[in-house]
Amino acid sequence: MITRTDVQEAATRIAGHVRTTPVARVEPDLAGPAGALWLKLEFLQHSGSFKARGAFNRLLAAAERGDLPAAGVVTASGGNAGAAVAYAARALRLPAEVYVPTTAPAVKVDKLRQLGATVLRHGSEYAEAYDAAVKRAADTGALFCHAYDQPEICAGQGTLALELLAQVGEVDTVLVAVGGGGLMAGIAAGLDGRARVVAVEPEGASALHAALAAGGPVDVPVAGVAADSLGARRVGGIAYEVAVRAGVRSVLVSDAQIVEARRLLWSSHRLAVEHGTAAAMAALNSGAYRPAAGERLAVLLCGANTDPSDLAG
Amino acid sequence: MITRTDVQEAATRIAGHVRTTPVARVEPDLAGPAGALWLKLEFLQHSGSFKARGAFNRLLAAAERGDLPAAGVVTASGGNAGAAVAYAARALRLPAEVYVPTTAPAVKVDKLRQLGATVLRHGSEYAEAYDAAVKRAADTGALFCHAYDQPEICAGQGTLALELLAQVGEVDTVLVAVGGGGLMAGIAAGLDGRARVVAVEPEGASALHAALAAGGPVDVPVAGVAADSLGARRVGGIAYEVAVRAGVRSVLVSDAQIVEARRLLWSSHRLAVEHGTAAAMAALNSGAYRPAAGERLAVLLCGANTDPSDLAG
Ligand SMILES: Cc1ncc(COP(=O)(O)O)c(C=O)c1O
Ligand SMILES: Cc1ncc(COP(=O)(O)O)c(C=O)c1O
Repeated sequence: MITRTDVQEAATRIAGHVRTTPVARVEPDLAGPAGALWLKLEFLQHSGSFKARGAFNRLLAAAERGDLPAAGVVTASGGNAGAAVAYAARALRLPAEVYVPTTAPAVKVDKLRQLGATVLRHGSEYAEAYDAAVKRAADTGALFCHAYDQPEICAGQGTLALELLAQVGEVDTVLVAVGGGGLMAGIAAGLDGRARVVAVEPEGASALHAALAAGGPVDVPVAGVAADSLGARRVGGIAYEVAVRAGVRSVLVSDAQIVEARRLLWSSHRLAVEHGTAAAMAALNSGAYRPAAGERLAVLLCGANTDPSDLAG
Repeated sequence: MITRTDVQEAATRIAGHVRTTPVARVEPDLAGPAGALWLKLEFLQHSGSFKARGAFNRLLAAAERGDLPAAGVVTASGGNAGAAVAYAARALRLPAEVYVPTTAPAVKVDKLRQLGATVLRHGSEYAEAYDAAVKRAADTGALFCHAYDQPEICAGQGTLALELLAQVGEVDTVLVAVGGGGLMAGIAAGLDGRARVVAVEPEGASALHAALAAGGPVDVPVAGVAADSLGARRVGGIAYEVAVRAGVRSVLVSDAQIVEARRLLWSSHRLAVEHGTAAAMAALNSGAYRPAAGERLAVLLCGANTDPSDLAG
C-alpha cells in the first residue's frame, strides 16, 4: 500500500539527486480530438530512465533509517532498473552488486560495469538471477532493491507525477507503460485522483491486464520488442493493489504499433526512445486509447536506453 | 539591421505556427565552475530545427503586407533551411520550390519532396543552385527565402531568445552554433544585452570568425563534420553587423570536439542531435569557452536532422 504522502516524502528525499525533466507540449492531432498533449521527457533522467527516482528513494530512505549497510546494495536486472541502482549507488558511494542471467548481452553487462557495479551472471533465466540476488542480500546484509515491487521503489517513481502536475497544471489523463507496474503504482498514488491513469502494455507482455482479468497477479508469457523493459512475468502486488484501488484502465498495443509509435516520435519530434517507452505513445497513435473531445493528455516518455540505428533515414 | 522589436513582432506573428520548445536544466559539471546549465531543446521544432521559426516569419510577414504571391516561395538549400521553408509553405498552403546542387544526396531530396516541395537540382555547387533560385524568384515573382541573410529570417530565429528568457529567467551567456549567422543575429538582437552571446563555429567552417578578423564578411573554405548545416561560405551581412554591434564573442571547435560532444549528449542525456548542433555544446566540453564561477549558461540545441546510427552502443 503506498499513498500520496509516501510519494511526497520521496520527492523531498530525492530532490537534488535526480533531474527535473521537462515537458514538451505538442499538437494533439495524433490524439484525435484531445485538447492538449504533453510529452514528459523523462528519458533525460540520470541512467536514461525514470528508474533512477525509485533507486535513489530506496537508498536514501534506508540511509535515513540508519539502515544502509556497508555491504551496499544488491539488485537483479540487466535493464534499466539495474543501471539505475548502479548509478544511484555510485552517486552515494556505495558498492552495488547486480545479478543478471548468463544470457544477458555483453553490452548491458559492460554498461553496468561502467557504472561501477559488480555484475554477477547467474542462471539461464531472470528468475534464477533474482533468487540468487535475494539470497546474496540475505547472506551479506546488503540492501535488496526490487525492480518494481517495493514501496520505496514505487513511491520514488511516483515523484514523476508530482513533477508533471507542477509543470502542466491540470491534466485529465496520464498514459504510462507497464512492466512490473512500479511506475504505474507510483504515478497513480501520486496523482491520487487528480488525473486518470491509463496503463499500457504490449499484447505479448501483459502482466497487469492478465492480473486484472484474473482477480490477482498471475504469471504470463513474455515476448516481443519491448520485453527487455516491459517483460515482467508477473505484476507486482503493490501495482495490482493500486491499480484496483485507483481504477486504472488497462489497454494493450501490438508490437507493430509500438514500432510505429517509436518511429513517429523520431520523425515528428526527433526523440529516440526505447520500445518500452514508445508503447505509451502507441496507445494514442493506434486508437487503443481514444481520448474524449478536449481531453488533456500526458504521455510519459520514460526511457531511451535504445540502439537508435534503425531510426536512420 | 534588426532590433529586439523586430524579434518581438516575429514572436507574435509566428505564435501558434511553431512549437514552444522546452528547456532541460542539467548539472553544470560539464561546464567547469558554471552556476547553471540549460539546454534549449529546439530540435523538437517542426521540421527538426529552429529554421521553421524564420521561415514562418518570412512567409507570414509577406502575407501581412499582402505580398505573398500565388507563385509561392523559392529557396536554395538541401538542408534544414530548405526543409523548414517547405514545411512552412505546406502549412500555409503555398507552393514551394527548393533548389539544390546536383550533388545533394537522394535522402535529402526525398525528404523535401515528402514535405510537398518541388525540388530542382542545379549546378554542382551550392552557389549555382542559389543563383538559379534567385533568378527563378525574379522570373516568377515568387517570394525568395534566404537561408540566413534576410531580416525576417533572422528575426524569426531570434524568437528562440525571447522564449528562452521567459523560461529560465536570468541567464548570463547563450552559446549558439553559427553557419551563415542568421540564428546568432536573431538571438543577439532578441537578447539585446540581457545576456552575452558566444558564437561557436567549426575550425573548418569559420565564416564569422574570419569576418571578424578581416573587418567584414569574406569567403572561407568549408569542410568538416558539420559542414552540411554550418558550412556557409560567407557570413551574412546582417549577422556581421549584429555581431559587431553586440560584441558577440567568437570561438572555434575542432571536428573531434564536435563528435565527442554529440556522443556525450547521447550518453549522458539520450539526446541525438546533429553535428552542427553539437558544436555549441562542444565549446563547453572542450574548454574553448570557459565560464566564470557561477555563470549561468544556455546552450541552444537547434537541430536533430541526423542519422543516429553511430550513437549505438
Ligand atoms: C523505459 C521503461 N518504461 C517503463 C517501464 C515499466 O516500469 P515498471 O516495471 O515499473 O512497470 C520500464 C521498466 O523497466 C522501463 O524501463
Ligand atoms: C542545426 C543547425 N544549427 C545551426 C545552424 C546555423 O544557422 P545559421 O546559418 O543561421 O548561422 C544551422 C543552419 O542550417 C542548423 O541547421
